[in-house]
Amino acid sequence: MKYYATITVIGRDKTGVVARVTNYLFEQKANIEELEEQVTRGQFSMTLQASWPSAFWDFERISSGLVKLAQELAMEIKFRTHDPKQLQRAAILVTKEPHCLQGLLTAFGARQLKAQPTVIISNRKDLESIARKNKVPFELVDKADRSEAEKEVLAVLERHGIDFVILARYMRILSPNFVWRYKNKIINIHPSLLPSFPGAQAYRQAYERGVKIVGVTAHFVTMNLDEGPIIAQDSFHVKPNMTLKDIVARGQELETRVLVQAVKLYLAKRLDVYWGVVKQV
Amino acid sequence: MKYYATITVIGRDKTGVVARVTNYLFEQKANIEELEEQVTRGQFSMTLQASWPSAFWDFERISSGLVKLAQELAMEIKFRTHDPKQLQRAAILVTKEPHCLQGLLTAFGARQLKAQPTVIISNRKDLESIARKNKVPFELVDKADRSEAEKEVLAVLERHGIDFVILARYMRILSPNFVWRYKNKIINIHPSLLPSFPGAQAYRQAYERGVKIVGVTAHFVTMNLDEGPIIAQDSFHVKPNMTLKDIVARGQELETRVLVQAVKLYLAKRLDVYWGVVKQV
Amino acid sequence: MKYYATITVIGRDKTGVVARVTNYLFEQKANIEELEEQVTRGQFSMTLQASWPSAFWDFERISSGLVKLAQELAMEIKFRTHDPKQLQRAAILVTKEPHCLQGLLTAFGARQLKAQPTVIISNRKDLESIARKNKVPFELVDKADRSEAEKEVLAVLERHGIDFVILARYMRILSPNFVWRYKNKIINIHPSLLPSFPGAQAYRQAYERGVKIVGVTAHFVTMNLDEGPIIAQDSFHVKPNMTLKDIVARGQELETRVLVQAVKLYLAKRLDVYWGVVKQV
Amino acid sequence: MKYYATITVIGRDKTGVVARVTNYLFEQKANIEELEEQVTRGQFSMTLQASWPSAFWDFERISSGLVKLAQELAMEIKFRTHDPKQLQRAAILVTKEPHCLQGLLTAFGARQLKAQPTVIISNRKDLESIARKNKVPFELVDKADRSEAEKEVLAVLERHGIDFVILARYMRILSPNFVWRYKNKIINIHPSLLPSFPGAQAYRQAYERGVKIVGVTAHFVTMNLDEGPIIAQDSFHVKPNMTLKDIVARGQELETRVLVQAVKLYLAKRLDVYWGVVKQV
Repeated sequence: MKYYATITVIGRDKTGVVARVTNYLFEQKANIEELEEQVTRGQFSMTLQASWPSAFWDFERISSGLVKLAQELAMEIKFRTHDPKQLQRAAILVTKEPHCLQGLLTAFGARQLKAQPTVIISNRKDLESIARKNKVPFELVDKADRSEAEKEVLAVLERHGIDFVILARYMRILSPNFVWRYKNKIINIHPSLLPSFPGAQAYRQAYERGVKIVGVTAHFVTMNLDEGPIIAQDSFHVKPNMTLKDIVARGQELETRVLVQAVKLYLAKRLDVYWGVVKQV
Repeated sequence: MKYYATITVIGRDKTGVVARVTNYLFEQKANIEELEEQVTRGQFSMTLQASWPSAFWDFERISSGLVKLAQELAMEIKFRTHDPKQLQRAAILVTKEPHCLQGLLTAFGARQLKAQPTVIISNRKDLESIARKNKVPFELVDKADRSEAEKEVLAVLERHGIDFVILARYMRILSPNFVWRYKNKIINIHPSLLPSFPGAQAYRQAYERGVKIVGVTAHFVTMNLDEGPIIAQDSFHVKPNMTLKDIVARGQELETRVLVQAVKLYLAKRLDVYWGVVKQV
Repeated sequence: MKYYATITVIGRDKTGVVARVTNYLFEQKANIEELEEQVTRGQFSMTLQASWPSAFWDFERISSGLVKLAQELAMEIKFRTHDPKQLQRAAILVTKEPHCLQGLLTAFGARQLKAQPTVIISNRKDLESIARKNKVPFELVDKADRSEAEKEVLAVLERHGIDFVILARYMRILSPNFVWRYKNKIINIHPSLLPSFPGAQAYRQAYERGVKIVGVTAHFVTMNLDEGPIIAQDSFHVKPNMTLKDIVARGQELETRVLVQAVKLYLAKRLDVYWGVVKQV
Repeated sequence: MKYYATITVIGRDKTGVVARVTNYLFEQKANIEELEEQVTRGQFSMTLQASWPSAFWDFERISSGLVKLAQELAMEIKFRTHDPKQLQRAAILVTKEPHCLQGLLTAFGARQLKAQPTVIISNRKDLESIARKNKVPFELVDKADRSEAEKEVLAVLERHGIDFVILARYMRILSPNFVWRYKNKIINIHPSLLPSFPGAQAYRQAYERGVKIVGVTAHFVTMNLDEGPIIAQDSFHVKPNMTLKDIVARGQELETRVLVQAVKLYLAKRLDVYWGVVKQV
């Protein structure tokens, strides 16, 4: 069994930070699976994924070492992990459409998805009752200012010890600053066969364009809207007399199914993101 | 049984041309199914589709009436038709990939496609031997200048009395001036699920983007490259270990099948193009 | 001086309608500048632009002749025209952003745009006060159902005898059924250099993509969202320290200017739409 | 004065590689400005940019230390650097259009671009005479197989000690495997205002779409074709009577100018690539 953690380091640049952090992790027997660092206008930012064989894992020791290191470097270090004997903790972000949220909660309930739906976050109240019925905490974050809203969402994720994020028809765009902190840990469902029909009103776009195959895409969220690595897609043929309403109905069924499938692949650790492309392993 | 004809009228604008032509057709008992006319910088151009109940059809009479009308109006009038008791005459335009051409010839041969493959036109010699083996005349039009090459292709189509055109992986772009004369009578196959991946190298684009569903599109050719009304699409799932080569192989099978299917729908007169969208009727 | 009219004919298909209408117009000495007709599933629809030398123009006679013809054919015929000695009548559709509306009203007021701002239509109340201050009738059409809302907008246009429509940051999508009736008579402003960044949030898309040139596009509205013939574009360089807010501010100035310029070109009859492309003449 | 180097490390994954390498660089007083590492299917790959204050720079010592480290880790480590007292060494990749190549060579010759044009690489012979006239070595790499051709190009770059690469209308697509090794060190010029009109035939696409502003884009090359971070763009208005030929002529002038400008910004170290966006500093 392996233990996994995500570490982010942010602060004013100084020499040796990468070496100090990776050296510390090496002493702690971690393997660094992925690392991205850059210095921009004197600002240092780094995010890395590390793993430990269970024999070397000691949360308290690693964690307190990082706290000490953060003080020495005068930088912010976040250490997010979860006990592999426990379920990963998922946040579900929604707006007003219920179908994906309900599909996910059903799949979690049936142990089809082996993770813990820990909190539901929304910019509207519409789906609060579903959250309540399923006994998942609901948090309303409806600030109009995107930057402030995101800070609040980040705080909610932190408070709930969230491991990964599912966007289940969440209708706000996440900024690079948000996405960076959950690299390849935010899964979105988009109602088209990307790269066709990005943006809003995807079914209507497809319908008015007259395509004969309509589909949906689950993907990791990156800096560029609707351009992240594709995890799963599925599609159906448009029959001659289907209306837009029929297409939306079929599409929404598919959204739920493909989103659940993508989360399942993610939880099975069967996904590798390699130069912007998801390889199933 | 109905008789169909396409009539194009081109020349210096003068008052009453639309009325004169449509009036003449009305006297000849034609029904005008579609008409598009415009005057631009003093240049008049009109294309129309007309149909006749067989009782009123008399090719010689209608045709010689149009010749007389053209003289009176001092305009060019083309009258393209075919005897519904005979097969429609298809031109197939190709470049160097053989699979679609071969699939079409097989389907024509098996009477799966009820039309006459009348001429194969190419900008290269690669597929001449296939044409010869199938006893279909082959015409090489390899002028570098697009405008001159198109004039020559138009002359070949005229000479062979072509009713409709199939682009079977033809690698040159047709100009508006060409396309206009065969409105909704040119069928192309494009190796992607349009509107994704227009332009060249579509399979490579799809592969490098990491999509999980790859497909192909048969569409009518319009003024805008890869944007014409979609007739048929089909797709397959990309399995985790498929290489680009595997995708191209699967895709080419699909190209042939979808192109044959689109031609079949076209010949069955089951297609209506309505505001840029194909409705199957 | 010339008189112009738009005529639309809709109804169950029957033989001879095109000939009857164009023949009538020929007798009335009209020149048909553009005509588009099609029969789909037994439904006949035709829109045409005609012009008359002033010597032959007699509104009452032409109009009553068309009313009679409509009865004979049992079809709906609409005859929209305006006296060239009078100003064209513009409808301005808006949602909540005031800058384009205000720029247009200023340009109309200063006789920079020689047309009559006849009605302002909106799906929200935000800009009602601007309408009132400028003494232009304001009509709220806020039905949620698109099809019903459009019927109501069409009725308002009819009631006000509107010649052409300006979309001044109108945030609803018009259906083909609406657009068809005002072919090349609906002008929209889109906040990007189309075809880049169609759809919503165009400035944000441009900003997050990091383009170094941002611009705006005035275009005729067609069936396909943000794909109509481009009338005018303008752009500016993104300076190194510009924020999204700066870009939006500069962009909105440009929107106003380019929209006014496009309307001016339209009113000067200096635009020809030819195979989907605007030619300035 | 600062010394810069790019280090790439490739091999079978093992624990501690990141720490070992970054630690070594820390001991050597390097600052790590950017680092990207990932492990995929047991394959470790890392690319990093490091800088040294001149006081601590000792090429021989650092280099031989890395050679030793490579042996210990049993991995391939490449160390590419240049003496800041010397000019950076540029490779120019071309196909057959001469204008950008000539513009670059003129700018290099006039010391407007302070770098050394070290080698010209092409998949065709067309421009060999220009290379010869300017006394820059010319290397023909015309293998049809992309993967083999790239290996050969990489070998040429290595042999010439190339610091950065300019694609001056190079008509072949570079694979992720190539691009990764020269992250943010390959500059391309594309003949459109990206993201409009990616792919081939960009001017024709723009012309047939009828845009009123045409432009060009210099960008860093990334894994995704025509989607890399934009360095510079410029544009011009399409005048009413411009032909496609006129547009191409104006565009090619602009290509040359914008490519030279982008290389100048690059050499002035005024570019930061931040989450896929170039910030000028």
